[in-house]
Amino acid sequence: MTYELYYWSGIQGRGEFVRLALEDAGADYVDVSRGPKGDEAFMAFLENRDLEQPPFAPPFLRDGDVVIAQTAAILLYLGGRHGLAPQDERKRLWVHQIQLTIADLVTETHDTHHPLGANLYYEEQKPEALRRAKHFREERIPKYLDWFERILAGNPEGDAYLVGKSASYADLSLFQVVEGLFYAFPKTMKAALVSAPRVIALRHTISERPRIRSYLGSSRRIKFNERGIFRRYVELDR
Amino acid sequence: MTYELYYWSGIQGRGEFVRLALEDAGADYVDVSRGPKGDEAFMAFLENRDLEQPPFAPPFLRDGDVVIAQTAAILLYLGGRHGLAPQDERKRLWVHQIQLTIADLVTETHDTHHPLGANLYYEEQKPEALRRAKHFREERIPKYLDWFERILAGNPEGDAYLVGKSASYADLSLFQVVEGLFYAFPKTMKAALVSAPRVIALRHTISERPRIRSYLGSSRRIKFNERGIFRRYVELDR
Repeated sequence: MTYELYYWSGIQGRGEFVRLALEDAGADYVDVSRGPKGDEAFMAFLENRDLEQPPFAPPFLRDGDVVIAQTAAILLYLGGRHGLAPQDERKRLWVHQIQLTIADLVTETHDTHHPLGANLYYEEQKPEALRRAKHFREERIPKYLDWFERILAGNPEGDAYLVGKSASYADLSLFQVVEGLFYAFPKTMKAALVSAPRVIALRHTISERPRIRSYLGSSRRIKFNERGIFRRYVELDR
Repeated sequence: MTYELYYWSGIQGRGEFVRLALEDAGADYVDVSRGPKGDEAFMAFLENRDLEQPPFAPPFLRDGDVVIAQTAAILLYLGGRHGLAPQDERKRLWVHQIQLTIADLVTETHDTHHPLGANLYYEEQKPEALRRAKHFREERIPKYLDWFERILAGNPEGDAYLVGKSASYADLSLFQVVEGLFYAFPKTMKAALVSAPRVIALRHTISERPRIRSYLGSSRRIKFNERGIFRRYVELDR
């Protein structure tokens, strides 16, 4: 069965966490909005009033007659099916908890350029963005990186992965969030990552996984840009 | 085994979604911070560097040697153990997806009074809060309520609950978020709920569940206040 991923065609955004899992799993999938219909494809879906389980927002994944929205829920679904989550229930829940915390970090990252809401352009909320980004750079990024580093250091099965001895969807997502923060806040991240050697190592490990490396070098990987979640505005990285 | 819930002692906040599930299940639990140690109890926990699965932030739940953070992950754990989630895997994931969307709504609610971040007082970001709250009232509340109403109307097993024929943790959480929004935005909610009769009915159904009714009338239920997520600032409800 071919999975159908529905997400904005022009950005990595939250969809990228799902794309990385699908790519790493070598799963058969179509990124629907990047086909001929473009973003209309998921718009029509969202407006369909007859769905029993309507998605609130993209990304969402269709697997036959199952439609799942919410990035973390999609990954929970895919993880068990493609060896990207531990078998053990307790570890599986722990991976999910880490993923939910990564989701919080993603939301906070978005809020650095959109503190007043997604209905206004960045240029309409720039003074507010400057204030919010300062706190994010000085307090939040270090706090999150310290937490990830602690988890890696405390993993009883070795510090190569967040949970257990092999990569889970949370490792792929941590790779992505570090990539994104590096794009958006290069100066801040360069300084902050000095205290997080295991996070740096994980980022490298994931980037070298054969399917991920091949994906990152392909045209399927959309480049970071200033319409997504991770945006490079130099004034926010002072 | 007695569960231990760790959360701020003076607010409902995100901890309340867990409290409601524990109360409805009739589970044996201690709300640790409301005991003699106060909020110090969870602070010590957060600062413990030896935990294999450290929580990033409260709320978190201890069940013997298992410690789980992230509200939605805690509910995923409790739901399966206390009959507050369907047996069927697909429906269980759907309940979780709804819960994650409720979590997004909770975060957006918090951002109405703290658009620039949790490091500043409301009074230091009031003009920004006014702008953000307007969008929340006019666009976001109606969009979320419409989505919940659609789910109830489309439930093939009847419109009394979000999923299936009995209450899940997502129904308890929807009750709570409606209660909270009613407290914070009474004018907006009174108008918006006219188009969401099934949401109103669900709110009533949940409030009448014997253990919930007993809990709501007890001193264990902390009153809404202006330190929590749902705050009544009349200027934000114009």
